Amino acid sequence: METPRTAAGTRLDPWVDAYAARTRGLTASQVRALFAVASRPEVVSLAGGMPFVSALPLDQLADTVSRLIRERGHQALQYGSGQGDPVLREQILEVMSYTGITAHPDDIVVTAGSQMALDLVVRVFCDPGDVVLVEAPTYVTALGVFSSYQCDVVHVPMDDEGLRPDALRQAIAAVRASGRTIKLLYTIPSFHNPGGVTQGPARRTEILEIARREGILLLEDDPYGLLGFDGSVPRAIRADEPEGVIYLGTFSKTIAAGLRVGWALAPHGVREKLVLANETATLCPSQYTQLTVSEYLATQPWFDQVTVFRELYRERRDALLESLDALMPAGTTWTVPAGGFYSWVTLPEGLDATAMLPRAVAALVAYVPGVGFYADGQGRDSLRLSYCYPEPDRIREGVRRLAGVVEAELEVAETFGSPAPRADREGPASPRPDQA
Amino acid sequence: METPRTAAGTRLDPWVDAYAARTRGLTASQVRALFAVASRPEVVSLAGGMPFVSALPLDQLADTVSRLIRERGHQALQYGSGQGDPVLREQILEVMSYTGITAHPDDIVVTAGSQMALDLVVRVFCDPGDVVLVEAPTYVTALGVFSSYQCDVVHVPMDDEGLRPDALRQAIAAVRASGRTIKLLYTIPSFHNPGGVTQGPARRTEILEIARREGILLLEDDPYGLLGFDGSVPRAIRADEPEGVIYLGTFSKTIAAGLRVGWALAPHGVREKLVLANETATLCPSQYTQLTVSEYLATQPWFDQVTVFRELYRERRDALLESLDALMPAGTTWTVPAGGFYSWVTLPEGLDATAMLPRAVAALVAYVPGVGFYADGQGRDSLRLSYCYPEPDRIREGVRRLAGVVEAELEVAETFGSPAPRADREGPASPRPDQA
Repeated sequence: METPRTAAGTRLDPWVDAYAARTRGLTASQVRALFAVASRPEVVSLAGGMPFVSALPLDQLADTVSRLIRERGHQALQYGSGQGDPVLREQILEVMSYTGITAHPDDIVVTAGSQMALDLVVRVFCDPGDVVLVEAPTYVTALGVFSSYQCDVVHVPMDDEGLRPDALRQAIAAVRASGRTIKLLYTIPSFHNPGGVTQGPARRTEILEIARREGILLLEDDPYGLLGFDGSVPRAIRADEPEGVIYLGTFSKTIAAGLRVGWALAPHGVREKLVLANETATLCPSQYTQLTVSEYLATQPWFDQVTVFRELYRERRDALLESLDALMPAGTTWTVPAGGFYSWVTLPEGLDATAMLPRAVAALVAYVPGVGFYADGQGRDSLRLSYCYPEPDRIREGVRRLAGVVEAELEVAETFGSPAPRADREGPASPRPDQA
Repeated sequence: METPRTAAGTRLDPWVDAYAARTRGLTASQVRALFAVASRPEVVSLAGGMPFVSALPLDQLADTVSRLIRERGHQALQYGSGQGDPVLREQILEVMSYTGITAHPDDIVVTAGSQMALDLVVRVFCDPGDVVLVEAPTYVTALGVFSSYQCDVVHVPMDDEGLRPDALRQAIAAVRASGRTIKLLYTIPSFHNPGGVTQGPARRTEILEIARREGILLLEDDPYGLLGFDGSVPRAIRADEPEGVIYLGTFSKTIAAGLRVGWALAPHGVREKLVLANETATLCPSQYTQLTVSEYLATQPWFDQVTVFRELYRERRDALLESLDALMPAGTTWTVPAGGFYSWVTLPEGLDATAMLPRAVAALVAYVPGVGFYADGQGRDSLRLSYCYPEPDRIREGVRRLAGVVEAELEVAETFGSPAPRADREGPASPRPDQA
């Protein structure tokens, strides 16, 4: 049953028939080549989700790390525990306390970014064909994880307060009527990526009650929770339910994405499985990155820096919203984020954000088309705008260019009629984080 | 089909019935508690595989990293490419050139340690029930990966030159006769972990010819290749076969394990899949750790440091072998490593290394029992000794203690007869890298 070798020198893949079934779910985005173009400096990219790390106190961080290596190099450069550094896990409790969470450090698993934690949770829980309930739209690389473990993704609609409880109940009933098993409800309650919306306290309680009643494990992804623009931190769902929620956190947005330090807080029995899975996947998280974070938290005014980030992103959010208000043609709508990095834009009827992207890039502005945030081909009329990385003036210029493109599309549609909706479905399609 | 919740407050796992089938393969080692004891300073640990990172030039490394953050912090702290930093990939080519490998940087994928690369290769290729051929014994956490993807592990015996070609041919024929699919041949040709043996050039050629003829993808794991004690570097199998070999490398032993920077060099089509899988698992490898490695390679005499490590480990290997020669009771045999970290010890007939471990730890010496390096319960009469971390005098003291324990076991066996072999099989059982 092994694959016969093809002739040497060909660029065809001689192992094409040897891949696992799950590998069919790994496909390169059709728009990726376009994003490579979009990373040119003359393009205003409202596409990528890169935090603005240049705002960090680099000199202090350099001193912190230099001291760490000199004084504790034997520890920072060595293998560590598969669960993560014990001191860092204590410090993570302090970080999570802003969201109302109380927990034991033994129930935290540190991972190579919270992406790895998400991967491990799905690895531990999901057999092929198991259903994961997710928001519509949802985080694009979460869809990649679900796909790579051959999960069946079922989208649940959102409104201006995020996941809709009525739609959640309907989805659960429909999935169960079809005889399938629901393993996880994946939700981003605060400053949603890509939706830009936030679940209020009553909404969270209602969703939690549904999960409890139905016996569904809730996977709460909270990368942006500390980045609320009014200075408050939404109370995590996990704060009110320790046994039925796995909470994912990260330092990517509060310190630096390049460190790749995230974590899962999980019920005790689940935590044991996640540690074993973490050891299998990476042996242990990097001591070097963990102790860098730990020293930074211990010696620098880290929460003041979070406040700096909040102000910076709030200013950029304002620049985006003011420009959208002033410039976008009638019929375009968008969400008003109270924190985080993103606004979700819905185009006037008949326009297709995927088809429009090449013309936007030609006009020197980039965004991520909505279809990338769905597993089922929804989202053609939508797109995600990120305001986290460009300076406010660049954001304004980007929206000006985008508004021009949308207006031109509308003119074409009025002249020639709307293009027929494309029948083909695309999988998740998003730029690499550093590309756009 | 969801799991009903148990009463609040119980420490029983309410999600015990919700795990994926693959999670059954994730079990904590029965000897792990013992290794926690073995990490006490009074115990001489010949168990763990920790490199001796204190030999690194820590002041120079501190200066390098400090400069990196000050001058390129915006890059080192940001998201990066899912394939890894392009400059580092060029430098990895230089590192691999010592093994005879020539390649294109586009065919390298940087990962969070080579463990992650191993995980991704198996993820991309192996469906449940697919066969992976491995040496007997083999690297313990590789067994963990194969188990977590529900592979069927088939061990192939080794001799003093590693994997035996005759046994490999037999194993392939037997697996195929059973109707199963062989996806990978996983081998550690140089300074084997745990076997301590090295394939000579003719042996490598013969194994490669078998893999070619049978159309089996060869997965070459080479963490120790640069650490040969006579100063030569064995030629990698990949050096003679670019399309049929995936080569795994790491900086864990040549720079520092705490960085978690490894890589896979793969045939072009496979590399594309690995990049997509890498993005799904971790979004991207850490720019911070990658640029730390890159700066160190660019500004420090990194190969001189490898020579320092070689000398240091050779001295420790000598201390181990001399002590074993002088002290171990007749009937005990061991391999003579020409590089790397490990020697594989076979006890006199009738002794059981797993049963003996508690008594060894009581005598203040620790090792890893042989069964941990097999998927099928072999190895009861064997154990792995690591000489990489303790100072030579500690190694001698450790062997003295171990010899005393073996002698006492022999006396018991002569007085009361050998204990009946235990019927139960244990899964892979090894200490955490930092524990033992």
